[in-house]
Amino acid sequence: MTAFVRNQWYVAAYAHEVGRELLGRTVLGEPILLYRTEDGRAVGLADRCVHRRFPLSEHPSRLEGDKVVCGYHGFTYGTDGVCVRVPGQTRVPRTARLATYPVVEQDSFVWVWIGDREPGDTLPPRAPWLDSPHYTTVCGMEPIEGDYGLLVDNLLDLSHETYLHGGYIGTPEVAETPITTEVDDKSAIVRVSRHMDDAECPPFYANSTGIQGRITRWQDIEYHAPALYLLHSRVAPVGTPAPRPDGSDPDAFHVEVVYGITPSTEKSTYDFWAVARDFALDDQEVTEYLRSSNHTVVMQDVVALNALQRALDTEKPGYQELSINIDTGGLAARRILARLAAENSPQAAAR
Amino acid sequence: MTAFVRNQWYVAAYAHEVGRELLGRTVLGEPILLYRTEDGRAVGLADRCVHRRFPLSEHPSRLEGDKVVCGYHGFTYGTDGVCVRVPGQTRVPRTARLATYPVVEQDSFVWVWIGDREPGDTLPPRAPWLDSPHYTTVCGMEPIEGDYGLLVDNLLDLSHETYLHGGYIGTPEVAETPITTEVDDKSAIVRVSRHMDDAECPPFYANSTGIQGRITRWQDIEYHAPALYLLHSRVAPVGTPAPRPDGSDPDAFHVEVVYGITPSTEKSTYDFWAVARDFALDDQEVTEYLRSSNHTVVMQDVVALNALQRALDTEKPGYQELSINIDTGGLAARRILARLAAENSPQAAAR
Amino acid sequence: MTAFVRNQWYVAAYAHEVGRELLGRTVLGEPILLYRTEDGRAVGLADRCVHRRFPLSEHPSRLEGDKVVCGYHGFTYGTDGVCVRVPGQTRVPRTARLATYPVVEQDSFVWVWIGDREPGDTLPPRAPWLDSPHYTTVCGMEPIEGDYGLLVDNLLDLSHETYLHGGYIGTPEVAETPITTEVDDKSAIVRVSRHMDDAECPPFYANSTGIQGRITRWQDIEYHAPALYLLHSRVAPVGTPAPRPDGSDPDAFHVEVVYGITPSTEKSTYDFWAVARDFALDDQEVTEYLRSSNHTVVMQDVVALNALQRALDTEKPGYQELSINIDTGGLAARRILARLAAENSPQAAAR
Repeated sequence: MTAFVRNQWYVAAYAHEVGRELLGRTVLGEPILLYRTEDGRAVGLADRCVHRRFPLSEHPSRLEGDKVVCGYHGFTYGTDGVCVRVPGQTRVPRTARLATYPVVEQDSFVWVWIGDREPGDTLPPRAPWLDSPHYTTVCGMEPIEGDYGLLVDNLLDLSHETYLHGGYIGTPEVAETPITTEVDDKSAIVRVSRHMDDAECPPFYANSTGIQGRITRWQDIEYHAPALYLLHSRVAPVGTPAPRPDGSDPDAFHVEVVYGITPSTEKSTYDFWAVARDFALDDQEVTEYLRSSNHTVVMQDVVALNALQRALDTEKPGYQELSINIDTGGLAARRILARLAAENSPQAAAR
Repeated sequence: MTAFVRNQWYVAAYAHEVGRELLGRTVLGEPILLYRTEDGRAVGLADRCVHRRFPLSEHPSRLEGDKVVCGYHGFTYGTDGVCVRVPGQTRVPRTARLATYPVVEQDSFVWVWIGDREPGDTLPPRAPWLDSPHYTTVCGMEPIEGDYGLLVDNLLDLSHETYLHGGYIGTPEVAETPITTEVDDKSAIVRVSRHMDDAECPPFYANSTGIQGRITRWQDIEYHAPALYLLHSRVAPVGTPAPRPDGSDPDAFHVEVVYGITPSTEKSTYDFWAVARDFALDDQEVTEYLRSSNHTVVMQDVVALNALQRALDTEKPGYQELSINIDTGGLAARRILARLAAENSPQAAAR
Repeated sequence: MTAFVRNQWYVAAYAHEVGRELLGRTVLGEPILLYRTEDGRAVGLADRCVHRRFPLSEHPSRLEGDKVVCGYHGFTYGTDGVCVRVPGQTRVPRTARLATYPVVEQDSFVWVWIGDREPGDTLPPRAPWLDSPHYTTVCGMEPIEGDYGLLVDNLLDLSHETYLHGGYIGTPEVAETPITTEVDDKSAIVRVSRHMDDAECPPFYANSTGIQGRITRWQDIEYHAPALYLLHSRVAPVGTPAPRPDGSDPDAFHVEVVYGITPSTEKSTYDFWAVARDFALDDQEVTEYLRSSNHTVVMQDVVALNALQRALDTEKPGYQELSINIDTGGLAARRILARLAAENSPQAAAR
């Protein structure tokens, strides 16, 4: 099992999921209650009543203004976690207080900070396309019944597109084209690039861009361990000029594929996925095509990773894997995750 | 997990459930076979054939007169547990004998004794209303996927009615009104009383009694640890005279709410519930209303306690609860259960 | 739990199940991939890609000629298990190789060898009736959620037919008639015989043979531990001459009941069952009757053994069984299995 990395921001929900209904999510094994105050601020509290541990996200718990009322015995909490009412007596015990979770809304995500330290000035990594007016985005979340490390492996090695996602986003060139990998240990970023100069155009891009014929296709991965994965995808007909020195690239199509990778329990993971494009911004048909198509692709991963987890669950201890060049990025990610996990373990915090 | 208390009577079934079909129930982890002889006596035997441990309550095991025939190889047992026939030979091994369970039928329940000692003269506690001609009763049983201690906690603290059962039996006054608690350690009885002098009448009582307007509402709990819970409920329009010195109380409505709390396994419980009333005895509409309404209330508890058990299953060891005044009865019950469990453990028996 | 016996042949599938679709079966806890080459040879390989342990039997893994292509990243293997292609590079690591399983097709079964040693000249035991032109066979496979030892117990003691399979193959005489048992420790064969000279004819035989009235019924069991069970069943009207000295027996009906007993995991078993008859060879109605009737009988066993396993799962350690004469064969089988398991354990192999 891939160790959890504490003292980090994780995507707990999309902003549109957090509202005036109580929402429960479990992040790194911690049950978290999410809701929005009447003036629109997202709140994160421990999702267990201090009295008898009833989940505050469970029916019939409810909001009363900005306060949360436990559905079992009516213990009532403010947004600061402090209990303000208990049944049958006027005195509220001083220790009646829920843990609070730092929350940041950014780029359409609600991020929560999980850790022993405070985040201080640390902000979550960025995915600005997701709520930019220059992009149109489709998104969703699918739970995976597997270790989050399996999703990290999956996304760092896109050669699997050719096999698992053939007919959607995979073509032979993805698996055939070598990658380059750069590891920034200090920033905990792994970059994996695959530039295909003359490749088949898979349906996902042919149907959304209208390109007929072969393409140059660039996949530039930027994994901000542990929680955010970006895939900068550039697609253009063969012969299209390269991006200009000023960075502009008016003749190519750009898709920003974003994953929030959120470990829930040791063997379950929230897979937040988003696809932002800089073309056909108002074309609803393209929007629906990409939503449906990418959902299919994500479900292919979910089914495969669930099967893989079940297979690993029956492996004898000490089983072996065999890694090759395509795994350079994934192995670097594993090393960074192991280091970050060790540095941020409760034991490390205690020293 | 709440320890099991051995050397006690537990409700294994309603009398009407025990007949000429074989019935299997697991009480304190012990699988028990229940049936009724041709002349109407309830029998309790170990529910595992001595041969290969096949459950005698499982199809196609069957009764042959008063004898039980195992559905696998035909080992046949009398009501005393003694094996009287085995296949392929005339000699029956002397040791072929099922454990028997003392059984008492009382107050519409079939009680079984679980323990190392014999019950002697000890009888189960009483709930005479359930088969009294002066009361009309509705009842049922719902399994809970949770520790029986969660149900004890639930029933000893009725402030939860306001929140979990709002719109059925809960009103604001239940949570607001302080309780008085009396603990009889010797008899292992906990009494919790809440007398509301001027309270809203919840639909459960308004619709069954026809009272319009506010009520005095008394809740007098009597918990006979570990297995029987009684709630003496008195409801009357505000201004109704108090009960007379001789105990009669002709102007009020009385409901006796009875729970048989039967631990099945470490994380499952049989919740036997009954509601007996002393008014509108022959009014079928009231009967059906109370049956349906109380079933809804019980299921609200079941859903909440199942959720609570799942939440507790993921708690880290050493998690904390916070108790307040309303928990006085529940905490007393826990202490009594812990003491009884220790006094009656197999280890204690061995000393 | 009954220990696994390694260095043995086990039925992994029927020949007709192994074709150009990838088939996954787990035998003695080992995941095995089965398929057939273009020229018809059955192949058995480890069902886990060496790269990231993805199951090769899982969609979208596929055959490419005689090679298996992993559905996750395209690792490609020949029938000898050697990897011949990996994504993104031309060099294939030398160690990229799947374990292969010796496979024999015999008597309509695909047998695989599970063990540390090679099978050498050892062949699986025979059940020649299953693909003989002188017999007509119906067959199937049902998974049991139980220890394979429960199925061995079940089949070695047919007195259960009277109780579990009454109305199908059981009559009172089966349970009443004593057995004779012979144990050949060296060959690991247990023989149990029950000859009923004057017995009721159960529907299974009455409807298939057309016999009206009472029968002589012989049941001669031959259990080749651990994997193959044969029941030679002879049925004839009372008064029919005995088999002739030369072994021919033209006036009786013969049914060969064959079970492949294949442990899958510690608590799951493949129950391969077949019924071959030497009469009414072309009578489709008899064929369908026997298929349906025997499937019902097998499912009665499956339901009972699943229930038995669940019951045993909750037994306290050290629970007792009580054995009688009918268990002689089953107990002998257990002893042989325990000895074979010990002799063939990985620890024994290491000495």
